[in-house]
Amino acid sequence: MLHATTTSLEDLATPAAILDRTRLDRNLARLAARMADLGVALRPHMKTAKSIDVARRAFPNGPGPVTVSTLAEAEYFAGHGHRDITYAVGIAPHTASRAMALRKAGVDIKVLLDTVEQAAFLAEAGQASGVTPAAFIEIDCDGHRGGLRVDDHDLLKVAAALKESGSVLAGVLTHAGESYALHTPEALTAAAENERAVAVKAAERLRAAGHQCPTVSVGSTPTAHFAAALDGVTEVRAGVYMFFDLVMHGVGVCSTDDIALSVLSTVIGAKPEKGWIIIDAGWMALSRDRGTAGQRVDQGYGVVCDLAGRIYPDLIVAHANQEHGTLTIRLGSSRSLPDLPVGTKVRILPNHACATGSQHERYHVVAGQDAAIEAQWPRIRGW
Amino acid sequence: MLHATTTSLEDLATPAAILDRTRLDRNLARLAARMADLGVALRPHMKTAKSIDVARRAFPNGPGPVTVSTLAEAEYFAGHGHRDITYAVGIAPHTASRAMALRKAGVDIKVLLDTVEQAAFLAEAGQASGVTPAAFIEIDCDGHRGGLRVDDHDLLKVAAALKESGSVLAGVLTHAGESYALHTPEALTAAAENERAVAVKAAERLRAAGHQCPTVSVGSTPTAHFAAALDGVTEVRAGVYMFFDLVMHGVGVCSTDDIALSVLSTVIGAKPEKGWIIIDAGWMALSRDRGTAGQRVDQGYGVVCDLAGRIYPDLIVAHANQEHGTLTIRLGSSRSLPDLPVGTKVRILPNHACATGSQHERYHVVAGQDAAIEAQWPRIRGW
Repeated sequence: MLHATTTSLEDLATPAAILDRTRLDRNLARLAARMADLGVALRPHMKTAKSIDVARRAFPNGPGPVTVSTLAEAEYFAGHGHRDITYAVGIAPHTASRAMALRKAGVDIKVLLDTVEQAAFLAEAGQASGVTPAAFIEIDCDGHRGGLRVDDHDLLKVAAALKESGSVLAGVLTHAGESYALHTPEALTAAAENERAVAVKAAERLRAAGHQCPTVSVGSTPTAHFAAALDGVTEVRAGVYMFFDLVMHGVGVCSTDDIALSVLSTVIGAKPEKGWIIIDAGWMALSRDRGTAGQRVDQGYGVVCDLAGRIYPDLIVAHANQEHGTLTIRLGSSRSLPDLPVGTKVRILPNHACATGSQHERYHVVAGQDAAIEAQWPRIRGW
Repeated sequence: MLHATTTSLEDLATPAAILDRTRLDRNLARLAARMADLGVALRPHMKTAKSIDVARRAFPNGPGPVTVSTLAEAEYFAGHGHRDITYAVGIAPHTASRAMALRKAGVDIKVLLDTVEQAAFLAEAGQASGVTPAAFIEIDCDGHRGGLRVDDHDLLKVAAALKESGSVLAGVLTHAGESYALHTPEALTAAAENERAVAVKAAERLRAAGHQCPTVSVGSTPTAHFAAALDGVTEVRAGVYMFFDLVMHGVGVCSTDDIALSVLSTVIGAKPEKGWIIIDAGWMALSRDRGTAGQRVDQGYGVVCDLAGRIYPDLIVAHANQEHGTLTIRLGSSRSLPDLPVGTKVRILPNHACATGSQHERYHVVAGQDAAIEAQWPRIRGW
């Protein structure tokens, strides 16, 4: 249902994803200013928002450089005028062909790899499309996922394979994924400095071997917000900072008042003897993400707010079935359940905005505590 | 991308949801035969499949009775000719209006409630649409979620409220949700008997008070497969049995050879020194569901098979980022990593078919070990 005539949260069918544009704009401005101060470019990661309307808030003067996690995103943002795109997931044969088709269409798409084999089939895909591929070598700065260690002897081999096969080495790219497990400013600043230092060292090693390495790309939302200096880095990637979420709050990157995404839900029942209130947002609306389970404060499946976005203290979504959520007072709290009769609407702050957003087809956009819906912004999915 | 010309798993872009029609048909036939033997009707829950093509396999002779978890599903299946629909999530004011609009359009949709307040706004919605609502009273058989205990004094109050407001009491409905936490045949059979006995007792209490209570509806995939007798029950609901998954395997309801849903993925990297293989299926393709984490065997984010669906022993998706999965050998196993070079395709058996299916727009349908894709079946989402 498009709810074309719905103009207020009061009347909106639930569950539904709500995006607070006031918070979104503040989050975008905060990191943009920080990156400008540090003298580096910001290349927002669109994997969280997956929405051209959100991209337009990030780039009010026209399409700018973006990062994407799927070729569906690359094709979508290219179709809306973005011409400078980094596809930050290791390239495979079928994605190489699709990426090179996009390059043939005039999009400066750069891909990611860390093996000689990938350089080989990327070159083949480039030849098949009649274009020169451009690739980042992925660097592993903290053992989180893929990428080469800075001292790996494959680093120079992969760079040489790119050169020999006629591709362009765009630079090095790393992601401090382990920063999500931290929660003190000191540790986050240290993780940012490590991310920076490793990326710069990898670039220097490549340059010393005679390679051009124009771009040094780092990024994660926590390190982007805690980096003290970014000498040698040319660009920063971050995505979830646009919306923020309870995991980022647990890491210490934002306050709950910064969280721009929430899920509107309706009370559909109660079990007073168990201290339960049942709502119509289950894991289908909230996602199965339990990212706060390993943090100091476990937020269950989300924190409960009223229609205006004010938190009910200690009330969380403790359990989730497919289309049911169970609200309870947090274990150890002496508070009692608020009175929320059947039909009451609540808003749930999500653990992980990337996961919760992906459960919805569109954002219903509001500004601050105003319940008026000012727009509906579709989002894309798939690969 | 619609991959309109793709005819084989070998050529299919990844990640993608694969549905083995041979296993689907076998799972459908198995429970249908069981219900026929026990003398009760089967009302499949379409919340797992969300696909009219799957419904057509369950009802080869034309649209039959279904259960749904959203009104989007109700409207979709009604649009494809299903006229007997139970919406098995507690009714709210906005869903009551939509359900009654569907009733006005000639669909025999029955809703679910457990409070006098719900009976009141349901009656209002019925009057507004000029139809007589029909509702089940939800019964709580095991403390899992919503519903009234069989001896709750509200049971007769809610039935009276329905009658006084001009609605029809369709019957009682319960769901043995706690059966998912069991794993022995004895415990599952006992859970099924408890589910049956509670539902029948609730119906008898209502009948003794002068109410007609034509339908006694029970169901969960585990109890449906382990019920020894269903005396007094008129229909059984189950959904995930169509596809099965690793959670159902852990409960003991199916073998891994029965799991009809898998996610096709491509190897995009490796970290031999860590014992990791990186694939392009992360939580966006697999879902964040970790339902096996609390079972005797934790399957991570899924079990890894080759292209023909043969399991690599002890190889699981141990970690998942948004678009990356990390394969490792299960902790405690002495096996070594199989040789899976970049570009190799694998299939991942999911923890929870309802959650994994919902991450995809369509099923790519194959028959058994044949890699030929015989159809694409779209699925619906939203509310």
